[in-house]
Amino acid sequence: MRRWNGWGDDAVNFALEADALAFLARRIGAGKGREDATFEQACNALAPPRLPYHRLVETSAPVRLRNALGQSLPDWLKLRYGRIGAAPDGVAFPESAEDVRELLDYAQRYGAAIVPHGGGTSVAGHLTAGEGGQATLAVNLTRLCRMAHLDRASQLATFGAGVYGPDLEAQLRAHGYTLGHYPQSFEYSTLGGWIVTRSSGQQSLRYGRIEQMFAGGTVETPVGRLEIPTFPASAAGTDLREIVLGSEGRIGILTEAVVRVSPLPAYEAFHAVFFPDWASAETAVRELAQAKLGLSMLRLSNALETTTMLALAGHKKLIGLLEGWLSLRGCKDGKCMLMLGASGARPQAKAAIAAALRLARGHGGVHVGRKMGDKWKQNRFRNVYLRNAAWEHGYVIDTVETAVDWPLVESTMHAVEAAAAKALAQHGEQVHAYTHLSHLYAQGASVYTTFVYRLAGDYEEDMARWRSLKQAASLAIVNSGGTISHQHGVGSDHAPYLAAEKGAAGIAAMEAIFRHFDPQGMMNPGKLLPAAKP
Amino acid sequence: MRRWNGWGDDAVNFALEADALAFLARRIGAGKGREDATFEQACNALAPPRLPYHRLVETSAPVRLRNALGQSLPDWLKLRYGRIGAAPDGVAFPESAEDVRELLDYAQRYGAAIVPHGGGTSVAGHLTAGEGGQATLAVNLTRLCRMAHLDRASQLATFGAGVYGPDLEAQLRAHGYTLGHYPQSFEYSTLGGWIVTRSSGQQSLRYGRIEQMFAGGTVETPVGRLEIPTFPASAAGTDLREIVLGSEGRIGILTEAVVRVSPLPAYEAFHAVFFPDWASAETAVRELAQAKLGLSMLRLSNALETTTMLALAGHKKLIGLLEGWLSLRGCKDGKCMLMLGASGARPQAKAAIAAALRLARGHGGVHVGRKMGDKWKQNRFRNVYLRNAAWEHGYVIDTVETAVDWPLVESTMHAVEAAAAKALAQHGEQVHAYTHLSHLYAQGASVYTTFVYRLAGDYEEDMARWRSLKQAASLAIVNSGGTISHQHGVGSDHAPYLAAEKGAAGIAAMEAIFRHFDPQGMMNPGKLLPAAKP
Repeated sequence: MRRWNGWGDDAVNFALEADALAFLARRIGAGKGREDATFEQACNALAPPRLPYHRLVETSAPVRLRNALGQSLPDWLKLRYGRIGAAPDGVAFPESAEDVRELLDYAQRYGAAIVPHGGGTSVAGHLTAGEGGQATLAVNLTRLCRMAHLDRASQLATFGAGVYGPDLEAQLRAHGYTLGHYPQSFEYSTLGGWIVTRSSGQQSLRYGRIEQMFAGGTVETPVGRLEIPTFPASAAGTDLREIVLGSEGRIGILTEAVVRVSPLPAYEAFHAVFFPDWASAETAVRELAQAKLGLSMLRLSNALETTTMLALAGHKKLIGLLEGWLSLRGCKDGKCMLMLGASGARPQAKAAIAAALRLARGHGGVHVGRKMGDKWKQNRFRNVYLRNAAWEHGYVIDTVETAVDWPLVESTMHAVEAAAAKALAQHGEQVHAYTHLSHLYAQGASVYTTFVYRLAGDYEEDMARWRSLKQAASLAIVNSGGTISHQHGVGSDHAPYLAAEKGAAGIAAMEAIFRHFDPQGMMNPGKLLPAAKP
Repeated sequence: MRRWNGWGDDAVNFALEADALAFLARRIGAGKGREDATFEQACNALAPPRLPYHRLVETSAPVRLRNALGQSLPDWLKLRYGRIGAAPDGVAFPESAEDVRELLDYAQRYGAAIVPHGGGTSVAGHLTAGEGGQATLAVNLTRLCRMAHLDRASQLATFGAGVYGPDLEAQLRAHGYTLGHYPQSFEYSTLGGWIVTRSSGQQSLRYGRIEQMFAGGTVETPVGRLEIPTFPASAAGTDLREIVLGSEGRIGILTEAVVRVSPLPAYEAFHAVFFPDWASAETAVRELAQAKLGLSMLRLSNALETTTMLALAGHKKLIGLLEGWLSLRGCKDGKCMLMLGASGARPQAKAAIAAALRLARGHGGVHVGRKMGDKWKQNRFRNVYLRNAAWEHGYVIDTVETAVDWPLVESTMHAVEAAAAKALAQHGEQVHAYTHLSHLYAQGASVYTTFVYRLAGDYEEDMARWRSLKQAASLAIVNSGGTISHQHGVGSDHAPYLAAEKGAAGIAAMEAIFRHFDPQGMMNPGKLLPAAKP
C-alpha cells in the first residue's frame, strides 16, 4: 500500500547501509530518528469538514488525510509530526469530464476552493488546502486513467489526465508505443500533473519535455470547457496549450490530454563516464548537448554527488576497485560522473553513443561501460525511497532545482550549495549539499541540488530549518539569474520568487489570464501567484 | 530598389519562358497582362494624413504608400490597380525601444491605432490600416536591426527585432553562427515579424520553428514594458514567450529578441528523390519524419506540383531526359518529387542522408542525386519572383496553407484543391492548383497549396475572384480539421476562420490577454481577432 507519510509503496525499502550512515555521520554528524505520529493521530488532528453532501464527495478523515498534502519537506513534516493544519473538507473522485463539471458547479455554489490532485507528488506545495480561508474540495483525478484513443499514423494517444506514469506506459506498451516521460516521480505522478506543472523527464533529450508531448486536450474551467484540437504545428495566434501548461490548477481542471508518443525503442543503453574534474566535465556536456548527437539522456553529477552516490551504493569493495582503476586513468578526488543514454533504432543509437564517448574522451572522460549505466536505469525510480530510509535515521533530504544559461551554470551551483550551508549554520547545523545537471540543453542546463541535513526532532525547529534553507537557496537561484523551477513547478513554496523572473508586467498578465477563467478565484488559490490582497 | 507593388528587388527578374507560358495556357487559358497604376497615381489616391506632428513620424505620400500594405493578393490588387483604400496616416522609423515607447504614448494621446511593420511581407493582411476607423500610425521597425550581443557559450544572439533575414544571417556569419530560419520570404521578412506570426523556415526539421528559437526579449506594450529573460527551459508557470509568439501586434511592439543560434554547419546537402505516386511518397515522408534521422529539410510536391516545377524550370531538353530516365525506373505520370536536406557535422549529415535514401528506396523512391537539390537551394528565394512574371502575363498566383495530423493530409490536400476549382468555376475560370508538404512532423504535415489563375483585368472582378477562392479554400481547411495557418499567420484574411479551431472559449481567452495589454484597443485592431463590436 502507498505510504501516507512518505514516498512510495510501503513494501519497498531502500536501506541505508552502515557504511553509508558512517559517511553521513562524518559529513554532518550522526542523525537521530524519532517516532512519527500514527495515521490515526493524524486523522484525529483534522478539523471537521465544512462541505455539504454531494454524491461524488467523500468527507471521511482517512480519505481527506491521504489527499491533503504532497511530498515537499514541509508536507512531510506536517505528516510525520501529525500537524496537518488545513486539510481539504472533502475529496471527490470524478470518473468523467461531466463529473468534473458538476464538481465545479458544486464548489461554485458553496463558495469552496478547488485543489486538483494528480498523484500527490508535488514537492512545491501545490496541494495545500485552505489558502483562501474558504472550504476546500480536493478533486482527485486518478480515476480518469484510460487510454481513449491511439492514432498510430500520427503517433498520438488520448488519455484521461489522471493516469499514473506506469499505467500510461503499460497501456501504450501493449500497442508497441511509449511516451518516454520519466521524471523521478514517475511511479506516482500523473499525466495531468506533468502537464500543468511543466514536468521534464530524464530522457527529455530524445522525447522532449512534457511541453513538446502535449498536443491538445480538454479543460473544464469555471467559465466553461476549453477544448484544444491537435495540429502538428500552427501559426494561428495564441497557442492555447501554453495557457494550460504550467497553469497549476489556476484556470481549471485538465480532464483529457492527447500526447505525442513514439514506437518503443528497438535499442536503449546507458553508459557511465567519469571526468577528472568539474571544468572538463561541464565543457564536455555542453559540447555534447550542442552537438545534437541524438542521445536520449545526459546527467552530470558534481564531485560531491559522485562521491555520495558511490558511498551510498553499497558494494564497498567493488566501488573501491573502480575508484582505484579510475585513479590510474586520471579520475581521482574531484572526479565527476556522467550518465548518458541513447534510445531508438540500433545503428543510430549506437552511433550516437560512440560519437558521445569520442567527444568525452577528448575532455579526459573515462568510459566505464554499460554496467553502471544499466544499474542506474534499474534504480532510477528507487532513489526517491532513500528519503524514507534517511528519515528513519534522523536525516532529511530536500532538493531545489533551476535552469540557467551556460555561463551561469557553475556559479549558480556554488551559490545554491553555499547558501544552504550558510542557512543551516545559523541553526548550528551542517548540510551535505551536492548537485547534478539533470537536463542538458544547447543553451544551458538545469542545476539540481540535493540537501541532506539532520532532523531536529521538534516540529517548529524542523520547519524553521527548512524555511531558512528554502529561502536561502531560492534567493541564491533568482539572484544567480535562474528560473525558480526547471521541473518541479511553483506551487506555494516558489510563488514568492516568481516575480523575479516574470516581472510585474508578467505577473499581471498571468493574473489577467487566471481571472478570465476563474473570476471568483476558486481554483487552487494561493498557488503559483500569491492570493490577491482583498 | 525594392518593388513598391510586387515582390522583391526590381533588378531581379525570374522570367516565364515560352514553354512555361504554353503550359499555363493549356491548363487554364491564355493570360492577358494589363497596365498597372503608376507609383504617382497610387500616391495621389491616398487620403490626406490625419496625424499631428511628431519628430519620428513621416507623413509624405510615398513613405505612407510604401508602408501601407503587404504581399497578400488583395494587397497586390490594391497596389496594381492604384486602389489603396485606407493607408496609414503616418509612418515612424524608431531607432530605439525609447522611440517606440514615445510613439505608443503619442498614438495613445491622439487616439490613433498602431500597425507594426517588419519587412511588409505578410500574405494574410496583417498590415491593413484603418480597421477601427481611427487614424493609423505605421511603426516600421527595420531600423532596429543590430546584433547587440552574442553569447557563444549559450549560443544566444540578441538582435533588434526589425532585422531582415539576410542582415541577421550576415551578422551571425561573421562570427561563425547561423539562425537557420529560412522562410520563403527570407530576403525581406524580419525577425520580429517571424516571432509575432509564428513563422517556420524551410530547414525547421533541424533548427526548429521560430517558436523554438525565440529565447526571450522585450516588448513595449500600452501598459508598460514586458521583459522576458532567457532560460534553457522553465517550469515556472506561464511561458510569457508564448504570449508574444503569434500576437501579431495585438499586445505591443517587440523591440528586441534573443534567439538560439547554431554554429555554421560544416556540411550541407540537398537531394532530390522521385516517387512513383502520392501514396508511396506520403508513406515515405511520414516514416522519414518519424524516424528522427537528423535531417534538416523534407519537402514533398504532389504530382501536379512536380509537373509544374519541371515545366517551369526551363531546360526543356534536360528535363525531358530526366523524365525518360525516371520513367524507366517506375516514376511516370503521377510521380512526386521529394527534396531532402541535411546540415551539420559531415559524418552525421551524410549518415542521415544515407539512411533517408535507404528508407525512400523501400517505397520506390528514385534518387536523382545532389544536383537538383543544390539547384533548389540556389533558387529557393527566387521562386517568389515568379509572381511578378506571372502577373505581367495576366496570371495571379496565390497560396493557402495549413497543417493536419497524418490521417487528414491527403483528404485536406484534395479538399483545398477541389474547393478552389469550384470557387473559380463560378467565375467561369479554371485554376491550376498544386500542393506540397512543406514541413514534416512525426504527427502530421503542413499542406501548402498554390493557385494560378487568370487575371480579369478589372479590380472588382479580380477582388471577387480572390474572395471566392480564399473563402472556399479556408472553409475547406477548417472543415478538413486543419489549422487556418501553419506558417503565414492570421492577420485580417484568416481572422474569420480562427474560431473554428480556438472555440469560443479560446477566442475569449485571447481577447482577455489582448485587452489586458491594450485596454484601449489601439494595437493592430481587427487583426487576428475581428474588432469587438461596440
